[in-house]
Amino acid sequence: MTTIGLAGAGTIGSGLIRLLNTSPAARSLRIKAVLVRDAARPRPGLPVGTLVTARSQDLTDDPGIDVVVELLGGVDEAFRVVSRALAQGKAVVTANKNLLAERGPELFALAAKHRVPLGFEASVCAGIPIIRTLQEALRADRITALEGIVNGTTNYLLTRMSEERASYQDCLADAQRLGFAEPDPDYDVSGKDAVCKAGILATLAFGAYVDFRKIPTSGIDTLELEDVRQAEAMGYRIKLLAAARRSADDQLDAEVAAVLLPLEHPLASIRMEYNGVLVDSEGLVRTLLSGKGAGPAPTAVSILADLLDIAEGRARIPGAEHPFLAGAFDLGNRQSTPSRYYLRLAVPDRSGTLAQVAGLFARHDISLASVLQPEVPDTAGGSLVPLILTTHSTSRGRLDLVLAALAAEGWGRSVVLRIQEN
Amino acid sequence: MTTIGLAGAGTIGSGLIRLLNTSPAARSLRIKAVLVRDAARPRPGLPVGTLVTARSQDLTDDPGIDVVVELLGGVDEAFRVVSRALAQGKAVVTANKNLLAERGPELFALAAKHRVPLGFEASVCAGIPIIRTLQEALRADRITALEGIVNGTTNYLLTRMSEERASYQDCLADAQRLGFAEPDPDYDVSGKDAVCKAGILATLAFGAYVDFRKIPTSGIDTLELEDVRQAEAMGYRIKLLAAARRSADDQLDAEVAAVLLPLEHPLASIRMEYNGVLVDSEGLVRTLLSGKGAGPAPTAVSILADLLDIAEGRARIPGAEHPFLAGAFDLGNRQSTPSRYYLRLAVPDRSGTLAQVAGLFARHDISLASVLQPEVPDTAGGSLVPLILTTHSTSRGRLDLVLAALAAEGWGRSVVLRIQEN
Repeated sequence: MTTIGLAGAGTIGSGLIRLLNTSPAARSLRIKAVLVRDAARPRPGLPVGTLVTARSQDLTDDPGIDVVVELLGGVDEAFRVVSRALAQGKAVVTANKNLLAERGPELFALAAKHRVPLGFEASVCAGIPIIRTLQEALRADRITALEGIVNGTTNYLLTRMSEERASYQDCLADAQRLGFAEPDPDYDVSGKDAVCKAGILATLAFGAYVDFRKIPTSGIDTLELEDVRQAEAMGYRIKLLAAARRSADDQLDAEVAAVLLPLEHPLASIRMEYNGVLVDSEGLVRTLLSGKGAGPAPTAVSILADLLDIAEGRARIPGAEHPFLAGAFDLGNRQSTPSRYYLRLAVPDRSGTLAQVAGLFARHDISLASVLQPEVPDTAGGSLVPLILTTHSTSRGRLDLVLAALAAEGWGRSVVLRIQEN
Repeated sequence: MTTIGLAGAGTIGSGLIRLLNTSPAARSLRIKAVLVRDAARPRPGLPVGTLVTARSQDLTDDPGIDVVVELLGGVDEAFRVVSRALAQGKAVVTANKNLLAERGPELFALAAKHRVPLGFEASVCAGIPIIRTLQEALRADRITALEGIVNGTTNYLLTRMSEERASYQDCLADAQRLGFAEPDPDYDVSGKDAVCKAGILATLAFGAYVDFRKIPTSGIDTLELEDVRQAEAMGYRIKLLAAARRSADDQLDAEVAAVLLPLEHPLASIRMEYNGVLVDSEGLVRTLLSGKGAGPAPTAVSILADLLDIAEGRARIPGAEHPFLAGAFDLGNRQSTPSRYYLRLAVPDRSGTLAQVAGLFARHDISLASVLQPEVPDTAGGSLVPLILTTHSTSRGRLDLVLAALAAEGWGRSVVLRIQEN
């Protein structure tokens, strides 16, 4: 029998308790103690005799507990509980992406020192066995690039904007009503959630710690329906992509940003709250995994799979060569990689503007692939109207010079998105 | 150091030798002997000192060999080599789907008896870690259905027919020229390859041996471009699908057949020689894995991943509860499950035929959803012309009565395909 100390009994914790109670696979597992904020509140579904406590030492310091499952969320308290449990020689399973992205190197060092496993399948794309696949199936291969739709909220919003031709604001309000977006959506729509996951996935894929704080990140909060519509008219779908790629000089180019994906790109058809991760490698060539990104049931299943590995003695004990311990990756400058770009500018509604803008691009040697000035309701003179451009392949640096020149004119850059070519 | 006896040094074997020579992950592995038909032929790329032999006992009976990798293909000789190796207490890794589909229960019984692992990731959809995912990530879940595009040749043919509007025969000739189809394509196009894989995947997904010989199987060899074209006009794509589903009475409905998939179905966008497997389960809900189905590089990577599990002592030793040993599944009667159908009939080109056909369907209480008699070049009187029908939901049994009645009239049933509803 393997005994569990469960830290956190919210939605995910309750889902895990339910699964442990019902799954035949979980026969060999038993919850011994649950850490909660309010130990007096009744917790239905817990086996008789389970200790409900508000003191984390009742989990981390009980020699009768084999594994601590951390579902507290946040970083500081979670770090204290997990590091204490590891130091006490306990195995840990966590679903906490922030904790691992931020303090993964310290935690894996502790796990290696005390020779205990630290399972984290549920921390990224809970419903997709991507951690396992990167650590097991793909370790015999050499990964060259990784791209993922790793945030369900933004993919849900972009899908609804695309399929219903509804505005960002309307879709967001509806997503909040349906529980697909938080009351404060910033963490998701700004790309903050995605970049934590990008850090963890890139660390595993490329074999050295990738600090998420160094990954250039933007979100979807500046997008408008017009962008989604224009992208599709050109044969693209806008997706928030977490991407990392080994560059020619063996550095890593990483980015989290909304990009225009060709409709035939494997990730372009990932809809709604689903996630997808595409791995390019030398041997397997191109592998796609997709599934539900989050939710109590997928998260509980992924945690249980980790727990079973531990119970069977098959869990991986991190060694000195563990990706989180293998030094930090130099992040390359993605801006030097040429790309096509989509731009929505806000320019004055007066004659000569288009000539002026086109001249600016020409002067910086950026060739325009398409230009569209959509018809808008008659504006008062002097107001700004949208101008949508796509460029041929150019460097981001050169583009930034044009954007700076536009800004100097007092005009707006509204949206700048990379166009991906396959 | 883990020592390997490699049985078979054809395309896949050479790919594995290359990978073992170059992958940093393979440092702890060494090939000690290679079993070939012609031991005199030079084998470049083998480490100095490797024994090249035509006698299988030099692998199976050498106490200095830890693992036998079986790449012989076929069933009888492969069974002799693998069973002998297992009986001698050696671990085995095989890429042989025919062997496992047909004699899996005997081999896993031997592996369980001698407490040695039997790895087979490379046997099904080599470039997709589906065996691992079913055995590891999904064991904490309850799978309700599994659908796969598991044969690259047929998917390549169907994709080219669809995208180039080319005939089955033209696409096949081209695929043979490019190496995507064998000179004798029957094994692939008839569904025989797919049903072996379906047997293995269903066994793992549903936890009891599924004998592939009991799975109703058809292929794509009766399809014409007209079918692909009509399906797409109706919003479907034709795919050869290996499907298994837990039925209401806890039996298993399994089938390998070409079906009409809605364009938005996750497997509808799997193109060319790629494979895809979709797993529906209670916890993870819906997981898709896709990647290259075959080829020396993906196969070698999958074999190496299995070898590393063995070298690290993490490979699963089959126990009495192993799916291949857990008795045989009762296969349900998929024909009782109502479905919509697509039919292309061959009917006489004379007045009154349509009324007669429509009457026949009406008499058996099958409601037609659409009828199309495509215009064809003027035929000599009395010859047969195509008539394309789709039905509303009906049972296969009832449909078979209509088809029998049509046959009794001397008319042909050309193609009957299930239309899948999501």
